[in-house]
Amino acid sequence: MSKEEKREKFLSVFPKLVEELKSILVGYGMRGDAVQWFENSLNYNTPGGKLNRGLSVVDTYAILTGKGSFKDLSDDEYFKLATLGWCIELLQAYFLVADDMMDKSITRRGQPCWYRIENVGEIAINDAFMLEAAIYCLLKNHFKKESYYVDLIELFHDVTFQTELGQLLDLITAPEDNVDLSKFSLEKHSFIVRFKTAYYSFYLPVALAMYVAGITDAKDLKQAQDVLIPLGEYFQIQDDYLDCFGKPEDIGKIGTDIQDNKCSWVVNTALKICTPEQRTLLDENYGKKDAESEKKCKQLFYDLKINDMYHEYEEGIAKELKEKIANVDESRGFKGDVLTAFLEKVYKRKK
Amino acid sequence: MSKEEKREKFLSVFPKLVEELKSILVGYGMRGDAVQWFENSLNYNTPGGKLNRGLSVVDTYAILTGKGSFKDLSDDEYFKLATLGWCIELLQAYFLVADDMMDKSITRRGQPCWYRIENVGEIAINDAFMLEAAIYCLLKNHFKKESYYVDLIELFHDVTFQTELGQLLDLITAPEDNVDLSKFSLEKHSFIVRFKTAYYSFYLPVALAMYVAGITDAKDLKQAQDVLIPLGEYFQIQDDYLDCFGKPEDIGKIGTDIQDNKCSWVVNTALKICTPEQRTLLDENYGKKDAESEKKCKQLFYDLKINDMYHEYEEGIAKELKEKIANVDESRGFKGDVLTAFLEKVYKRKK
Ligand SMILES: [Mg+2]
Ligand SMILES: [Mg+2]
Ligand SMILES: [Mg+2]
Ligand SMILES: [Mg+2]
Ligand SMILES: [Mg+2]
Ligand SMILES: [Mg+2]
Repeated sequence: MSKEEKREKFLSVFPKLVEELKSILVGYGMRGDAVQWFENSLNYNTPGGKLNRGLSVVDTYAILTGKGSFKDLSDDEYFKLATLGWCIELLQAYFLVADDMMDKSITRRGQPCWYRIENVGEIAINDAFMLEAAIYCLLKNHFKKESYYVDLIELFHDVTFQTELGQLLDLITAPEDNVDLSKFSLEKHSFIVRFKTAYYSFYLPVALAMYVAGITDAKDLKQAQDVLIPLGEYFQIQDDYLDCFGKPEDIGKIGTDIQDNKCSWVVNTALKICTPEQRTLLDENYGKKDAESEKKCKQLFYDLKINDMYHEYEEGIAKELKEKIANVDESRGFKGDVLTAFLEKVYKRKK
Repeated sequence: MSKEEKREKFLSVFPKLVEELKSILVGYGMRGDAVQWFENSLNYNTPGGKLNRGLSVVDTYAILTGKGSFKDLSDDEYFKLATLGWCIELLQAYFLVADDMMDKSITRRGQPCWYRIENVGEIAINDAFMLEAAIYCLLKNHFKKESYYVDLIELFHDVTFQTELGQLLDLITAPEDNVDLSKFSLEKHSFIVRFKTAYYSFYLPVALAMYVAGITDAKDLKQAQDVLIPLGEYFQIQDDYLDCFGKPEDIGKIGTDIQDNKCSWVVNTALKICTPEQRTLLDENYGKKDAESEKKCKQLFYDLKINDMYHEYEEGIAKELKEKIANVDESRGFKGDVLTAFLEKVYKRKK
């Protein structure tokens, strides 16, 4: 099945989940206008991204169970895995609706942020809450009878809290309106991206598929985590690199991290190696909302050869992760191929 | 034990839970400034209210297990029940931090709303998320080994979602900045207050205590719910009544529901019985942020004798609930006294 077909198949599950969620509201006697509001929020905020996180739940399960392709999964099996995939997409929707409000962002996935839609505004906070609540409605409806039901719930709780911790450190380290580079460091960057991104984007899809496949030994979950968390960090470092050094025609957008005062790998690496004069330049120009200041920072990043340092980092981490994967203990049924599939999606990605 | 002593004992548990939650962050390697931020949010937003919800978990358990007073509970038993009580207070903190942002409120419990504290602002959204996440951290730490662990989690999930549904209907029925009384009705008011308030404030504390006491038959949970949800509605109708007709020296604040365009029982009752001319007066004055308009609405509520209608309602509902309680089936261990204790706290309350 082609990547596009996989995506279509996955997308076709979502309307069924929306109907299921709506029917809970109807069952409570909720009025039509409120049901419609919830439906709009689900449809506006949940699909529309790349769906990599959701899709990789199904992919991982197929690898773990030795099924060559999506087609070897029964319809019921596929639906269950896809439902878990959509639970991650709902978790992401919950985070993004709130993140856009906290970052005062304008657009998301090529459309206005939800809170900027007419009549929504601050109600978006409650809508974010409801996107999260939808996860547990779906888990209850589809997994309550499974022996691993409580594991799924705890996994979502743990990963949600980890993501919120990363978000908190990010918010107090790099507030949108107050530039203070003395708060930045590569160590903080590592913590922020592991917690804010790696747990929910890399570890969560694999751990969910492992529970369904019955590969649940703590040692195996740890093997997965030991690769996927640094891989998620690598993914985010690459994202930061591409924001500054990627070509807009490749990455499909114009980077804004410098103007947005982002605690990015690029600025943190520059801060580590720059001279006092260069530091003054950064203090005076980083996070400023004008093109001139942005240009000065970017020039400095080129002068400091941050792009070369990125390529060094990339080769080093890829080598390290490949070695870890080669040493995976497959005796209890876990498979290193699951991790290789993730690594291949990230390594030398351009967009 | 006096009411004040009960409160003190309950309050003394909270710092231990804060330490426990902080240690999770420290265990993740979280930095001191972020740990401090979380501690500040927990302490600013969680205690400080009347703590009725939290305290009633312990009270209910004592009645169900036939223990006359708090003193008959072992220290471990008390700590467990109090932890569940604090989980409700955390749930309420999560809702209130967000509600104040959505309502653009200024103060809460006599201090500035959390989002209005310097350097907090929109970060309060993530802080609300973390207050909710804290509930599941505590449940995992203290109840994972109990047979009813998953019941506690599902109960919190269900009640959270119900509260969010009530909040949603409230937000789209009575937006803070757009008065449209044609959206109001007594039926909507009933749905909103049952979902927004009654489930988490009345049903949740009792259901939690029932699980710990081992009284978990679906019939008994239903008996509790059948009294506590209408009782919660009565409590909110009383709250709406007091906001308009209560004496400031009794209720400890000056009512603001009229200026705030609240979908209150008072205005909904007025809308049901008013003449077309009186309706025009309401359309022109309700929800306006000036004292003159407010005074006109209030005068109309007096002219329509809404206060007499409230007293009629109160006598009717109290009679109905007493009858229901008298008919409670105690054969499986549930006790009508649990419900009487709640009713007595509400009936003819003045503040
Ligand atoms: Mg953002
Ligand atoms: Mg952000
Ligand atoms: Mg980026
Ligand atoms: Mg409010
Ligand atoms: Mg409100
Ligand atoms: Mg009130």
